[in-house]
Amino acid sequence: MALYSEMNAEQLKQERAKLSARYEEYKAMNLALDMTRGKPSPEQLDLTNTMYDDLSKGGFKAKDGTDTRNYSCPAGIADMREVFAQILGTNAENIFLGNSSSLNQMFDSIMRAMVFGEHDSDKPWAQVEGRKWLCPAPGYDRHFRVTEKLGFELIAVPMTENGPDMDIVEELVKDDKVLGIWCNPVYSNPDGIVYSEETCRRLASMKTGAKDFRIYWDNAYVIHHLSDDENEQGSVPDILGLCEEYGNPSRVYEFASTSKVTFAGAGISCIAANKENMDHAKKIMAVQTICNNKVNQLAHARMLPDLDAVKAHMSKHAALLRPKFGKTLEVLTKELDGTGVASWHEPKGGYFISLFVMPGTADKVVKMCKDIGVALTPAGATYPYGKDPQNSNIRIAPSFPSVNDIETAVNVLAVCAKITAIDKLLEEQ
Amino acid sequence: MALYSEMNAEQLKQERAKLSARYEEYKAMNLALDMTRGKPSPEQLDLTNTMYDDLSKGGFKAKDGTDTRNYSCPAGIADMREVFAQILGTNAENIFLGNSSSLNQMFDSIMRAMVFGEHDSDKPWAQVEGRKWLCPAPGYDRHFRVTEKLGFELIAVPMTENGPDMDIVEELVKDDKVLGIWCNPVYSNPDGIVYSEETCRRLASMKTGAKDFRIYWDNAYVIHHLSDDENEQGSVPDILGLCEEYGNPSRVYEFASTSKVTFAGAGISCIAANKENMDHAKKIMAVQTICNNKVNQLAHARMLPDLDAVKAHMSKHAALLRPKFGKTLEVLTKELDGTGVASWHEPKGGYFISLFVMPGTADKVVKMCKDIGVALTPAGATYPYGKDPQNSNIRIAPSFPSVNDIETAVNVLAVCAKITAIDKLLEEQ
Repeated sequence: MALYSEMNAEQLKQERAKLSARYEEYKAMNLALDMTRGKPSPEQLDLTNTMYDDLSKGGFKAKDGTDTRNYSCPAGIADMREVFAQILGTNAENIFLGNSSSLNQMFDSIMRAMVFGEHDSDKPWAQVEGRKWLCPAPGYDRHFRVTEKLGFELIAVPMTENGPDMDIVEELVKDDKVLGIWCNPVYSNPDGIVYSEETCRRLASMKTGAKDFRIYWDNAYVIHHLSDDENEQGSVPDILGLCEEYGNPSRVYEFASTSKVTFAGAGISCIAANKENMDHAKKIMAVQTICNNKVNQLAHARMLPDLDAVKAHMSKHAALLRPKFGKTLEVLTKELDGTGVASWHEPKGGYFISLFVMPGTADKVVKMCKDIGVALTPAGATYPYGKDPQNSNIRIAPSFPSVNDIETAVNVLAVCAKITAIDKLLEEQ
Repeated sequence: MALYSEMNAEQLKQERAKLSARYEEYKAMNLALDMTRGKPSPEQLDLTNTMYDDLSKGGFKAKDGTDTRNYSCPAGIADMREVFAQILGTNAENIFLGNSSSLNQMFDSIMRAMVFGEHDSDKPWAQVEGRKWLCPAPGYDRHFRVTEKLGFELIAVPMTENGPDMDIVEELVKDDKVLGIWCNPVYSNPDGIVYSEETCRRLASMKTGAKDFRIYWDNAYVIHHLSDDENEQGSVPDILGLCEEYGNPSRVYEFASTSKVTFAGAGISCIAANKENMDHAKKIMAVQTICNNKVNQLAHARMLPDLDAVKAHMSKHAALLRPKFGKTLEVLTKELDGTGVASWHEPKGGYFISLFVMPGTADKVVKMCKDIGVALTPAGATYPYGKDPQNSNIRIAPSFPSVNDIETAVNVLAVCAKITAIDKLLEEQ
């Protein structure tokens, strides 16, 4: 395909006419396609359907004899803590199990800091005037909303192929009002970037102005590879170990969940932290609740007793997701490669493909798609305050729709991206 | 039995010698009995064992088609919201379902007020210097710990046979630093008192200094009757309706859970509130999480589809609990009636029996019991800061142990209560 920027007005208009005709064809199809959120498909959820079937037959006791039906065991049953420890490459004593949402654990963790401070804080974070939070962007909109809601000024940090731009991060964290950073280190939402070991080491070792600075390490996609070939799979070092190694043992809270392993609406989440952070959190959590849902922990531990079982299960997810990511990339390549008006990442895992359309057009592209029945995550959502300074990034979530629907939706997206690009080029000419 | 207070020193010493001999006999039995917490017994938990067995067979869709396995539906599925609405005598739109712990919902609700304030607050509660909270006592230790941890001064309010002493409450709430009150209106923990309608109406209608004053209405035992005879069952009016009726529609948050209906470690909780409170909370909860465990909600709704099913199920709990409460009361009567050194409530439901031993002796009684293997809730636990000004109240939790163990444990308790009473009387003579 020819570079649009090298076409003259006449050529662009001809191209636009063809694209407009296609747009009208799609419009006539009365589409209703949704690629807004990273939701597992029904087929993926089916993989877990039998999880509860034999629970009562096996009895409700954890391996150590704990009756999961009753009160007790606030940190969760040892069986499932061990599974998460294996997934995250840390020790089970660092793991505290929550209910279905790791986002909930992140929110609660910052709420604790807001009201009580961290164990190494001088005062509760709610009392830190002008508190700030680093937001590698593009990033996860729900992360950003948590710290926005809690009154932090959100500071965008550009993403590179190796994770957040560490030169910038190291400079920003000198400010003692900067209290934390969101990180999604493996298959980052939405770029699918895996942080390099150097990035991880710099995060663990950097000098921060705030002594109670925290990394929120959301390892949401740690086992969510698209390939079964381990050479193709992304991974990062154990961040708890790294922080300890560099003398900053309390710097990080790590999170994970089974939301995209078992049931998005009924999984198990975990928070991992060193002893000082965990002891501090536990003192507050012991007041908050007696225990979380342990029967669900048991059901999970029975179905996924160790890392091998987890890997085998995730391989089935990968088999369902690969054709969807494949189709998305195939259409993007066919439609946009060589036009010079868009670029994208080819992730090896996670739930998203991050598309960069011509700067200044992302909102128009999303609107054009929506107008004919293709719903995408709002433009800007991947940036703090929902504002993409380039107005360029669009997050594609291919997990939920069928391959056929994806083919249609991504074609629509590509057509819209090209039309808006042409309009912009014509304007500029 | 003779009144101890009318015995002379010689008679008291003789009585004490007999009691000491019994104490030594119990000691020789090397007991290990636990009556500390209101935990359901294994037999009660067995009533729910099959809850998950046919889940997958029935499919994972709620009645309205919601796939409970996936994200969505933050307030919970309509099926189970309706069941809680029937239990609480309110409308389903007032109900928001949480995970297993209603205490967690109470904590989170006050945390929201701490950081964001209520919808009718001038400022976040964390900024209210000298904030106070009313604690009807004896009461639930975990309630008190929540507001203690969150920096409220705890103000004890005496309990009467009709609930908190409303003359005192009405006086105290004139102070605009008093931001709320804990209430456990049906079968109060530990007294088993059911608030009178007048108490409820006075709570709903009283003038408060703080315009954002909140009642935390923990309706934990609303359906936890010991008798199947409705004339014997306690009940209170719908408090949301009452607050609305008196022009204080945002005054109350109501809570309930299935912790003592299905599984204590894996139930469903709910918060009920009027539209203004709910809208305010939902804005924050939408940032906190995507949704709670809906598969568990579905399992509950399938087993307990309506109030009739709930009542039939609770009747089975009652059948298991009646002999335990009966045995406890039988032993207390046999051992202590007529001695004048103890009094107790005879609850019609709930999880506790509240025993008042001779003032100044509760801590000694609990210690004597513990020394020979009978664990009771620490003396004082039922009062703010764990300090019973009378040092008299002991909470008995008869639900978990077997009837035989209860017989032994309550005999030990009675013997210890009498020994310490005699020692005190002898001292005073």
